Amino acid sequence: MKIAIVGYGNLGKACEKIACDSDEFELVGIFSRRNPDLLSSSFGTKFYRQEEIFDFEGKIDVVALCLGSANDLTDTALKIAGRFNTVDSFDTHAKMAEYSNQLDEVAKANSRLCFYGIGWDPGLFSMMRAMISAVIPKGITQTFWGRGVSQGHSEAIRRIDGVKDAKQYTIPKDEALEIARSGGGENLSVRDKHLRECYVVAEENTDKARIENEIKSMPNYFADYDTIVHFIDEDTFAREHQGMEHGGFVMRHGYCNDKATFAEFSLKLDSNPDFTASVLMRYAIANAKLHNERWRGAKNILDIPISAILSCDRQKTIKDFV
Amino acid sequence: MKIAIVGYGNLGKACEKIACDSDEFELVGIFSRRNPDLLSSSFGTKFYRQEEIFDFEGKIDVVALCLGSANDLTDTALKIAGRFNTVDSFDTHAKMAEYSNQLDEVAKANSRLCFYGIGWDPGLFSMMRAMISAVIPKGITQTFWGRGVSQGHSEAIRRIDGVKDAKQYTIPKDEALEIARSGGGENLSVRDKHLRECYVVAEENTDKARIENEIKSMPNYFADYDTIVHFIDEDTFAREHQGMEHGGFVMRHGYCNDKATFAEFSLKLDSNPDFTASVLMRYAIANAKLHNERWRGAKNILDIPISAILSCDRQKTIKDFV
Repeated sequence: MKIAIVGYGNLGKACEKIACDSDEFELVGIFSRRNPDLLSSSFGTKFYRQEEIFDFEGKIDVVALCLGSANDLTDTALKIAGRFNTVDSFDTHAKMAEYSNQLDEVAKANSRLCFYGIGWDPGLFSMMRAMISAVIPKGITQTFWGRGVSQGHSEAIRRIDGVKDAKQYTIPKDEALEIARSGGGENLSVRDKHLRECYVVAEENTDKARIENEIKSMPNYFADYDTIVHFIDEDTFAREHQGMEHGGFVMRHGYCNDKATFAEFSLKLDSNPDFTASVLMRYAIANAKLHNERWRGAKNILDIPISAILSCDRQKTIKDFV
Repeated sequence: MKIAIVGYGNLGKACEKIACDSDEFELVGIFSRRNPDLLSSSFGTKFYRQEEIFDFEGKIDVVALCLGSANDLTDTALKIAGRFNTVDSFDTHAKMAEYSNQLDEVAKANSRLCFYGIGWDPGLFSMMRAMISAVIPKGITQTFWGRGVSQGHSEAIRRIDGVKDAKQYTIPKDEALEIARSGGGENLSVRDKHLRECYVVAEENTDKARIENEIKSMPNYFADYDTIVHFIDEDTFAREHQGMEHGGFVMRHGYCNDKATFAEFSLKLDSNPDFTASVLMRYAIANAKLHNERWRGAKNILDIPISAILSCDRQKTIKDFV
């Protein structure tokens, strides 16, 4: 299938590698807002300016939207959905329903199929929350994130005066996990369930106590969390904090006919963008397949049967998985 | 929706309770091979002979097939699928593909929709094996069962001379779980991964050593497993071994763009039949919904989007789960 990638950050690069390593894809090109003459890749990928994608109408089966900020993503998606099938990993929960409606309207008006919120959260975790809530009718569903790197929180620390570099890890609290697994914790908030651990490289001759205080009192980001700050040297930072690991847990404790029932799904990812890309690219394959079967409109991961993301034939699918 | 239940063992009884406790269902009746005059239920359920179901054509939306033995199930399913939509938890892996083809033919010829292999394994575990294998392209998928009661193995012990009662628990080995979680164990067999623990009530004045030896040397069932036998008294058995708990783990360790990736789904069930019934009844609701949307033929859990098993509307679904 012919795929195009819009955006060339971590996610776009991870999608590029998947497209080039697998014979299921033919990568038409990468469309970026940066000057294509300044971009190059060891895969010999062709780079174009973002708006040039409209010259490729009819030559692309699915466009993988790999744009960073939420506004960039929705604006671009709504434009592109009029001309192409798309998959995206839009993750602004509060705007998801509105975006779904807008995308559905554009896609249907133009006979396109657009998948949104495809990744692991939203994405696989959405699927798990819905599935376990349906099959365990009475109960509590909980999500924990981490241990993993939060890009937004890391950036917030780096903006503090005197901070040279920083990385923030979100860590689920073991005691909260145990409470959730035994059916409690209904009223635990995200901040009760997680702590924030920060690794900071300070500029020389800076007051570290002041930096630590600024981090711990930062509203929204850290003020209401248990926050731990470690100051480390630049070499240690370069050696130990370059990863983009992440993961998390979705679980539900409840009752089926008054009998205790517990389900849990967890992910442990050495690379958040590489796994998100892997999910996005599988659903790009499903998108092309289902568009051929005359699916139209905007769909999320709950609408798409697992059989659509599989490559093998029906008999082998039954043998291997059912 | 109007539901009928065929079969009145543990699974049929658990489905009956769900149907009667929820306002999503109207239970038309239970169809059993036993004499309906000898059956009664605290729910005031109507009982009929199994063959009487054909008098209810047009009056049942979905039939939940809750028959014990695999042969009963497929024979009955193929007859009933000509006249009704069905859901079943057929679990004979080796015959799944053949059964799927037969059921598909009958269902399509009669404009029916039949879901097969619906439960937790096959069922939710099938969904998990397929999903994690698709999104983590290079890796090893493993399933562990337990700690849980194996009905078949318990019965095998009870057939031994001098055994009054017995229960067998299948237990995943912790060390095998750890190997699987760290990406190893590709060549571990089911018997490498599980041990079998047996609780036996012996008749008075029986040679327990002989019973233990007969259990441990029983071909297929125990001979190739690590098997532990405990002799207990009748009171202890009555007090501690009446449950039908079960559960298990599906996991995959692999690589996305050469980055280690791990996914795991687990279930811990106080009652195997009550949870299986809960899954089956959710998919019965999906069956009625999708039959209305003109789905036809035989489908397994991989074919059915999660959105079909949800009760809430689209906006709430997005808000609560995505």
